Amino acid sequence: MNKTAGIEEESVYNYYDYSNWYSENGQPTLPPKEVIPPCNPTADDQLFHVCIASVSLVVVLVLSAVRKKNTVCDGFARGSPAVSSPVNFLDQTQHKGLAVTVFGLVFSKLCVLVLSPDPLPFSKDTPEETREYMKIIAIFYWPALYYPLLACGTLHSKLGYVLGTLLSWTHLAVLVWQKFDCPRTPELYKYYALLASLPQIGCLGFLCVKYPRLFLKGSVAGGSEDLDSDYYTDYVKLILKKKKSTNVRSDKPRLLEKVTDIIQSYIYTPEKVFRFPLKLAISAFVSIIAMYQVALLLIILVIPTIHIVRAGIDENFAFLLSGLGIVLSEDRAEVVRIVIHYTWCLEVCFVCGLTLACLVIIVMLMRSMFLHRSNLQGLYRGDIYNVYNCQKTIRPSQPGLVCWMGFTGYQAALMSLGMVLKTVVFFICFVWLVFLIIIPIFYGQNLILFQMAAKAWPVWVSLILATALQHITAQFAFIKKDAGTRDLNHRGSLFLLTYLLFLINVVVGLIAAIWRTVLSALYNIIHLGRMDISLLSRASEAYDPAYRYYAHFLKVEVSQSHPVMKAFCGLALRAAAAGIAGRKMRDAEEGIQLVNQKRQNKAVNDSRRVCARWHLLYTLVNNPSLLGSRKHFKLQSSDSFVDGVRRSATEGSRQDAGSQPVAETVPATETGSASPTVSAAAD
Amino acid sequence: MNKTAGIEEESVYNYYDYSNWYSENGQPTLPPKEVIPPCNPTADDQLFHVCIASVSLVVVLVLSAVRKKNTVCDGFARGSPAVSSPVNFLDQTQHKGLAVTVFGLVFSKLCVLVLSPDPLPFSKDTPEETREYMKIIAIFYWPALYYPLLACGTLHSKLGYVLGTLLSWTHLAVLVWQKFDCPRTPELYKYYALLASLPQIGCLGFLCVKYPRLFLKGSVAGGSEDLDSDYYTDYVKLILKKKKSTNVRSDKPRLLEKVTDIIQSYIYTPEKVFRFPLKLAISAFVSIIAMYQVALLLIILVIPTIHIVRAGIDENFAFLLSGLGIVLSEDRAEVVRIVIHYTWCLEVCFVCGLTLACLVIIVMLMRSMFLHRSNLQGLYRGDIYNVYNCQKTIRPSQPGLVCWMGFTGYQAALMSLGMVLKTVVFFICFVWLVFLIIIPIFYGQNLILFQMAAKAWPVWVSLILATALQHITAQFAFIKKDAGTRDLNHRGSLFLLTYLLFLINVVVGLIAAIWRTVLSALYNIIHLGRMDISLLSRASEAYDPAYRYYAHFLKVEVSQSHPVMKAFCGLALRAAAAGIAGRKMRDAEEGIQLVNQKRQNKAVNDSRRVCARWHLLYTLVNNPSLLGSRKHFKLQSSDSFVDGVRRSATEGSRQDAGSQPVAETVPATETGSASPTVSAAAD
Repeated sequence: MNKTAGIEEESVYNYYDYSNWYSENGQPTLPPKEVIPPCNPTADDQLFHVCIASVSLVVVLVLSAVRKKNTVCDGFARGSPAVSSPVNFLDQTQHKGLAVTVFGLVFSKLCVLVLSPDPLPFSKDTPEETREYMKIIAIFYWPALYYPLLACGTLHSKLGYVLGTLLSWTHLAVLVWQKFDCPRTPELYKYYALLASLPQIGCLGFLCVKYPRLFLKGSVAGGSEDLDSDYYTDYVKLILKKKKSTNVRSDKPRLLEKVTDIIQSYIYTPEKVFRFPLKLAISAFVSIIAMYQVALLLIILVIPTIHIVRAGIDENFAFLLSGLGIVLSEDRAEVVRIVIHYTWCLEVCFVCGLTLACLVIIVMLMRSMFLHRSNLQGLYRGDIYNVYNCQKTIRPSQPGLVCWMGFTGYQAALMSLGMVLKTVVFFICFVWLVFLIIIPIFYGQNLILFQMAAKAWPVWVSLILATALQHITAQFAFIKKDAGTRDLNHRGSLFLLTYLLFLINVVVGLIAAIWRTVLSALYNIIHLGRMDISLLSRASEAYDPAYRYYAHFLKVEVSQSHPVMKAFCGLALRAAAAGIAGRKMRDAEEGIQLVNQKRQNKAVNDSRRVCARWHLLYTLVNNPSLLGSRKHFKLQSSDSFVDGVRRSATEGSRQDAGSQPVAETVPATETGSASPTVSAAAD
Repeated sequence: MNKTAGIEEESVYNYYDYSNWYSENGQPTLPPKEVIPPCNPTADDQLFHVCIASVSLVVVLVLSAVRKKNTVCDGFARGSPAVSSPVNFLDQTQHKGLAVTVFGLVFSKLCVLVLSPDPLPFSKDTPEETREYMKIIAIFYWPALYYPLLACGTLHSKLGYVLGTLLSWTHLAVLVWQKFDCPRTPELYKYYALLASLPQIGCLGFLCVKYPRLFLKGSVAGGSEDLDSDYYTDYVKLILKKKKSTNVRSDKPRLLEKVTDIIQSYIYTPEKVFRFPLKLAISAFVSIIAMYQVALLLIILVIPTIHIVRAGIDENFAFLLSGLGIVLSEDRAEVVRIVIHYTWCLEVCFVCGLTLACLVIIVMLMRSMFLHRSNLQGLYRGDIYNVYNCQKTIRPSQPGLVCWMGFTGYQAALMSLGMVLKTVVFFICFVWLVFLIIIPIFYGQNLILFQMAAKAWPVWVSLILATALQHITAQFAFIKKDAGTRDLNHRGSLFLLTYLLFLINVVVGLIAAIWRTVLSALYNIIHLGRMDISLLSRASEAYDPAYRYYAHFLKVEVSQSHPVMKAFCGLALRAAAAGIAGRKMRDAEEGIQLVNQKRQNKAVNDSRRVCARWHLLYTLVNNPSLLGSRKHFKLQSSDSFVDGVRRSATEGSRQDAGSQPVAETVPATETGSASPTVSAAAD
């Protein structure tokens, strides 16, 4: 504090000192910058990073050692080795909050380091030519540095939580201390570094609270935690029940209902029996941070500049304007007043544009989440055509994996660029609105638009009349309703009208063409940040790079987290744990336990078993690729079976279940449309 | 000629006289215009239009009188009254060439009159304030003036053809005479009026040849000409045969085949058994004219201006540049040379951009026609979902009719705007290409882009390395192929890699985001002129005004011209004409004549009749709305039946046939997937 206090008065004075604002040739010079000396916090960044990097390395080594010990001591009974590994942090079984926060933290760091003069904390006053290289190294350094914060949570052990608590507290304490020491930096705007680090502080604060809470709750064996939860069985129960809820709505929904439906489709409300995939949750959080960082940068680049320009407007400016031939008023003081008012309008427009862009991004994000959910549910159901508009096989592929890896990064980049473009476009729209419509209405100046509209009124009237004429004649003269059918009537008059109105329709079409151009441009800019829709038309969807990423990502996600398969795995594991491996296992495989666990009468059970076997057969006939996976289950010894199930359960469900899910093909067989081949095989 | 010859020398002198090109304040003044006095052709426009308008009115009255006489004398035997009416010019039964040409003629006139100082030929030197009104009146006057040219062909009588010949020769003669008298006009560019009227001359020339040829060929009764042609029966035969041609192609087409397919899908080749709807043919022709007119206007606005600027560049210009701080060279003559070279580059860029825009428009037009055909064939087949991406009923509706009327106008307007935007965008692209890439490579100047790329090479290398790493690991490390299935492998490493490469993926994503923005903008600009695809994404397609028009237009077009129904109508009419009304009529209705007209054995026929009746029933069950139309056929007396058939045949086929075509549902029943309800009803 003592370092910055000294220049406080001086900077206040400098801030509005525009003595050399206009140089002699009438060209505005660059605004003078407030001089803020580089600030060196007490907690030296270089020293701290040497220490914390070493500590992090030690923590990672400790975690690996602990994991090895666990693997040797506990064996397979308490959880699969793959689950408790410190690298298994993107699995559904892990604490979602941790992964989301650490990804957010890393991304916040990226935003800061791109503009920072010292991208790597180890070197100070980086020379210009090596800065690029430093940035590239920093891009790998920061994720590595924060990695232990993520890994500490994956072991599900008290030691991990303690280490996580210590690490996160250290990071937070040093960061807050540094920011408290040096709230103002010479880059861009004095408080930029402080404001830009707020998301980091928030993320670290969350970790500081989360780790102690996890420690207090105690460690849980991670392996079966996921499969033991009721989520998957609830999901299966829900889809088996679903047939009851047929919508008995009238054919034509009323307007109010339609509007409500549309509004509801833009508001994401969590559903009880749906768990959002971790990768999508991370993307959404990172998008929010991207929005904040870009908005901050835009505000800091524009608003102080407008303030400086406004403070510098004086009578010289009026001279300059009249030199350029712009005469706003005879009185020079009046000119200054008007120009200041205009800069104030510009500022308001910019803030409005920025706010609107943020709102649009939030709405689009919610809509995306809504569609992610419905797409995932659709793919679980097997509605591949509806989601992709073509038939695809749902299984991990090489491009699919690449897209899965890059998805979050792409989403963040798209959001950032989208935010910039949206702000610029909305700002321009607001400027037009204010200067061409609002100011003319309130002050009676700049009436150009209104004058043009008034001058062209015969054109408007004739266009409207021609359009109305076509609508009215189409409604009343040219359509004949006859015995429940509709046909054309008075074809000659229709042709004559078409011909005579051809030229005026060209003019109407010109307006429609302009509207089409504006609409498609606005639509693309508004939807730029969304990867779940393609900006190209239906036939060319696949050429949109972002949509292509999303489509591939979805395939991998669905193939790895099909809830029905997970429900089956959980059931199989539980049955194995209860020790009744033989017969119960077969029941479980045939899906019978899912539907009736209560009624256990022998006779009912036997008839149901026949039915269930038939269903199994039907499923296998329809999903021939499942046969490969069934080989694991062929061994009749209970131990090796349990191993196999556990392995596949923890490493993710079988991918081919995604293509035609088991439990959802079962109800289809009950409708009676049985194919003869399957029946014969069942006998 | 004598009028314009006088100013020939003077204008040549004026054209390169730039004595006052730069005024004393260094601002370039407007280029001096070549002075071309207003030219009054010997064939006075005012007088000619008074005469020709009266003549046209007389011709229309004569045509109406002839039509009334025909109706009274000939009765229904030679053709329905609706067909030979002078207003029935957009029917499939009419001469396509006439309608296409007259629409093109009217549209060419629109392009000329928008910029003309005298939109209406009756008033000369129209004052500025009334010009707008004149233009609105002209928009209705010109179609009305050219209407007799269209109507003369619809009567299918020698008198009509004679009148048409006389009118078209008069129009052409006067127009050519006027243009010969006054090839140069003071508007825009001296030869603009002449060049802009070339399409008119072409269209009138076509009419001048077409009408005498029609007269020589003699009149044909128009009513059954359409239905008598083999087109419809050929169409039905083709779709009944189609099942043979199953494509026995390998599952994965080779790259070469794919490329060939794509190229072929952009080249429209007429199919023998498909007749392009008249309205679409008109739209295509009008689009070509719109392209020509806009290209002409763009060339005339830009190229002469560049020429004038180039001619005005001298050493003063070098002073001006150095005053602005731009120093191209120390030597002033060198500066002039460089600037002249640059203007030459600009001109080449503009011509290239314009040519590319024209090529793109032609390719897009062919692609549109290809898709129009496949969409129409799809809708005839009943593939409604594929065309519209949702289920719709195909029948004329009020918005459908409005869209049908305005379709051609919209298409022309879209093409014009698309041409302007495409040219501007391609011009800018070419300028970038030339000044940032080609000139630097050949002359070693302006190396900014290459310097930037060279400076940023570490970024590019690391991005490429990171992307390659992801692809390679995805291919070789993370996918496990096992018993015909594919699953993830090394999930921990996958997660770790995802996390560590997260930040670099953000940077990769930024490039993808920029590419997405540029791609979607370019895509929209290239496809702006096409109404058959929506520029919005799949879910919002209907909000695109042009696509909405196309979708509605297609519904009306399909409902009115279903070839299968027309084939049936033609068959029924022919059978009626042969006088065997009773039994044959039933055969015809049951579709039996279409498939085997040769084998007439009694036994075979009877069994086929049972089959055909079953098909009829099946069709009616699937198309309940057809029942309403069948009421017309219930009357057993042959005469009234024939009338009914003829009326419906000439007024267009029944619209509900479009929703599920008769003949194409018939083969579906032969596959054996019979629903029990229909079978029961058939018994």
